[in-house]
Amino acid sequence: MSDVNLGLYFLSEFVGTAMLVLLGCGVVANVVLAKNKGFGGGFLMVNWGWGLAVFSGVLVSAYSGAIINPAVGIGLLVAGTISLQMFFIAAAAQLVGGIVGAIVCYLAYRKHFDEEEDAGKKLGVFSTAPEIRSYGANLTTEIIGTFVLVFVIFAFADYGDIHIGVPGGLGPLAALPVALLVVGLGASLGGPTGYAINPARDLGPRIAHAILPIRGKGPSDWAYSWVPVVGPLIGGTIAALAAPLLLGLAA
Amino acid sequence: MSDVNLGLYFLSEFVGTAMLVLLGCGVVANVVLAKNKGFGGGFLMVNWGWGLAVFSGVLVSAYSGAIINPAVGIGLLVAGTISLQMFFIAAAAQLVGGIVGAIVCYLAYRKHFDEEEDAGKKLGVFSTAPEIRSYGANLTTEIIGTFVLVFVIFAFADYGDIHIGVPGGLGPLAALPVALLVVGLGASLGGPTGYAINPARDLGPRIAHAILPIRGKGPSDWAYSWVPVVGPLIGGTIAALAAPLLLGLAA
Amino acid sequence: MSDVNLGLYFLSEFVGTAMLVLLGCGVVANVVLAKNKGFGGGFLMVNWGWGLAVFSGVLVSAYSGAIINPAVGIGLLVAGTISLQMFFIAAAAQLVGGIVGAIVCYLAYRKHFDEEEDAGKKLGVFSTAPEIRSYGANLTTEIIGTFVLVFVIFAFADYGDIHIGVPGGLGPLAALPVALLVVGLGASLGGPTGYAINPARDLGPRIAHAILPIRGKGPSDWAYSWVPVVGPLIGGTIAALAAPLLLGLAA
Amino acid sequence: MSDVNLGLYFLSEFVGTAMLVLLGCGVVANVVLAKNKGFGGGFLMVNWGWGLAVFSGVLVSAYSGAIINPAVGIGLLVAGTISLQMFFIAAAAQLVGGIVGAIVCYLAYRKHFDEEEDAGKKLGVFSTAPEIRSYGANLTTEIIGTFVLVFVIFAFADYGDIHIGVPGGLGPLAALPVALLVVGLGASLGGPTGYAINPARDLGPRIAHAILPIRGKGPSDWAYSWVPVVGPLIGGTIAALAAPLLLGLAA
Repeated sequence: MSDVNLGLYFLSEFVGTAMLVLLGCGVVANVVLAKNKGFGGGFLMVNWGWGLAVFSGVLVSAYSGAIINPAVGIGLLVAGTISLQMFFIAAAAQLVGGIVGAIVCYLAYRKHFDEEEDAGKKLGVFSTAPEIRSYGANLTTEIIGTFVLVFVIFAFADYGDIHIGVPGGLGPLAALPVALLVVGLGASLGGPTGYAINPARDLGPRIAHAILPIRGKGPSDWAYSWVPVVGPLIGGTIAALAAPLLLGLAA
Repeated sequence: MSDVNLGLYFLSEFVGTAMLVLLGCGVVANVVLAKNKGFGGGFLMVNWGWGLAVFSGVLVSAYSGAIINPAVGIGLLVAGTISLQMFFIAAAAQLVGGIVGAIVCYLAYRKHFDEEEDAGKKLGVFSTAPEIRSYGANLTTEIIGTFVLVFVIFAFADYGDIHIGVPGGLGPLAALPVALLVVGLGASLGGPTGYAINPARDLGPRIAHAILPIRGKGPSDWAYSWVPVVGPLIGGTIAALAAPLLLGLAA
Repeated sequence: MSDVNLGLYFLSEFVGTAMLVLLGCGVVANVVLAKNKGFGGGFLMVNWGWGLAVFSGVLVSAYSGAIINPAVGIGLLVAGTISLQMFFIAAAAQLVGGIVGAIVCYLAYRKHFDEEEDAGKKLGVFSTAPEIRSYGANLTTEIIGTFVLVFVIFAFADYGDIHIGVPGGLGPLAALPVALLVVGLGASLGGPTGYAINPARDLGPRIAHAILPIRGKGPSDWAYSWVPVVGPLIGGTIAALAAPLLLGLAA
Repeated sequence: MSDVNLGLYFLSEFVGTAMLVLLGCGVVANVVLAKNKGFGGGFLMVNWGWGLAVFSGVLVSAYSGAIINPAVGIGLLVAGTISLQMFFIAAAAQLVGGIVGAIVCYLAYRKHFDEEEDAGKKLGVFSTAPEIRSYGANLTTEIIGTFVLVFVIFAFADYGDIHIGVPGGLGPLAALPVALLVVGLGASLGGPTGYAINPARDLGPRIAHAILPIRGKGPSDWAYSWVPVVGPLIGGTIAALAAPLLLGLAA
């Protein structure tokens, strides 16, 4: 990978994550903020919105191989696919992308933020929150969800010749299985914590929430903020360690 | 492109946009007009309906490369993919297609228009309207939504070898990613304004609404009509300018 | 096609249509009959159920090219793809398939038919009925819906090298676009009449309804039964005539 | 298949079924257990959740050809694709996978199990139960549903060159049609019994339910437990016998 332009690599991860978060936070805004056409649209709509947000995010991040998630990045690091330098460049780009994507989402829904009265819903557009607060249980749920994400992505790599995190390594169909995986993950494991499964997706928007002059906003719930960062990083690491053992890749 | 038959090119854009608008306005009619089997079917149903309307529209417009949207057309013009002449021919065809598609939709749902009492819902089948009227904010939302549409399409072109706007440039799988993109866009950014993201999709049906002898119809809301025309054209232009910079295409 | 085994050709169309109707009527049973897990699941669920019923029907009918619909068959006849003999063999197989598929659906949902009290809902599992009865308007809606179905299928044939009705003419991806087309068609144009868009899908189950000893069943509404037969045949014919003119196929 | 590593074969079926059951039981937990974000999400959400659970399960079980269901396995056995030894190894792996997948699902949703008061809902996350209890009718429904599953999979094998149960026999697109098939099957035939259509999917989680220290759990309903085992095995056997006769494979 000596011929990868690191500036473009950073840019690609930034653009992909910004797109992911713009569309992902967007569907939550549509469903939870008052007076939207999608208000009350249900969790399946949220699942499709996030899944297709990944779809678009991967497509616009093809240059760098579309990691767009530090939990995927740490898995690729553990597996030796990317270097520590690449991991940190990508993670920084993803975090900035998460902030910018959330700001653009706020711009698209600004009047609806203004008219919404519930500060909790406003934060909920940006970052995840558990339905039953219990750090141990919440962390467990995020670890399991992210394990599934990264483990199945590793299966793609072997099975479908789709190499996420490898510049030029995505075939033309890479975005579809990742998108469907995320639709299913949200439906299946998103109930307790809202499936952050991506530190940049959660921390970036939380920073945006803290910075933005949102009318009537409440606190940014920093007490919980470590869970959707640490949980996904653990889950991604375990998946990368388990994949070669459990997927029959050595055969 | 000297061997493109301009008459067939016009026809192809006309047919594709008519199909898009027939099916797109159709799903709104199904969900909002009284006594339909899809009445109250929810916004996710509207999103799938519009996304798959694009799917069918692209398939029947393959001859011309399936632009079927002046905002995509202006992006292709800015990028140098199509000429000014082609842009105007396509845009004219798209506008006429939008009118005709909406008329056919009216014919399919005529009895339900007759029995619906709310004039606002009748117009809502044809054209978009914001949930919170604020021209600046509504324009911003349409610009952001159309930016995403055209920007991701430009990513397709590079990444998946799918060349929208290029006669013969669509591969056999072109219709699917565009359709999924539009499903996601609607879910994620359609809440405030109903995601026109296509001047022909909004202005064409609005003209049809003004012309058609719809029982108990109200005004066609011309005061708002410029927003879903100007916003998408701006968004498509910005996307075309930003794409080469942000997608790593120069590398 | 001299090497097509006509017995297997009949069998293939029979099997495909039986599968289509079993799964298609099944999703309606699930949504409308009391005490089902899918009760009240909404019209989008019905749309996905019917679309994926087509998906399975096409897959099991690949030998004959998966016409599984006399309205598609008449379009292929008009276009010269199949002979009059093939059309009639296929149509007969499709009608018998529709009857058998509906009987198997009844067996799968028998206890729910027994416990349902509304005779109209029982018939609604088998055959379509308009929400606002008006033969002219209902016929128009069925013509438009079937036109879209057959017209887009003709676009597939040219564009995606997917030849429905040609034994051995379906590529490995044929079932997916047809399925998505039907999901979208139902969402967009299914509101007024329930989108029969297939004479065998409507008449076959109606015959089954008349024959089966369904507890507490009402009449089979033969007065309406011609609409979902004649409308689709007209729509399919128009589509076949219009396709070469409107799709740029001559170029 | 003399070069298949039987240990890895077992592991692959174990991993695939555990993934299937984790995500499949997960979506039910999300929809039925109190306080989840997906609570009341509807049956279409359950259908997508299970269908995409199959998607992920197939992807992580590619080494062994992703049988992940004894009813599919018995069909492959009857068809001569796998040996009796392979069938039993796979079935054992699938049963253990079902138990482990359900345990992980419990861990992901533990607090929601604790706060849910209805013991029937808790069991419903693990195993299927009929809406109207009638062993004959329930068995019939499971036989029909599983027949469709295995019969359409056999059509895939011939038509799309997707060989489930054959190590190395899955092409890169195998997971998608199986997933869509299961989405449709659930919508169409899942109403009366909840579509077990897989003995390991039902019996494995039922054993997990009996073992796990779930707060306030009720009995595991062993009286019904044979239906979702015997029905699928019968349905899969019939499908394998019928497929060569009905799919024109001999031609």
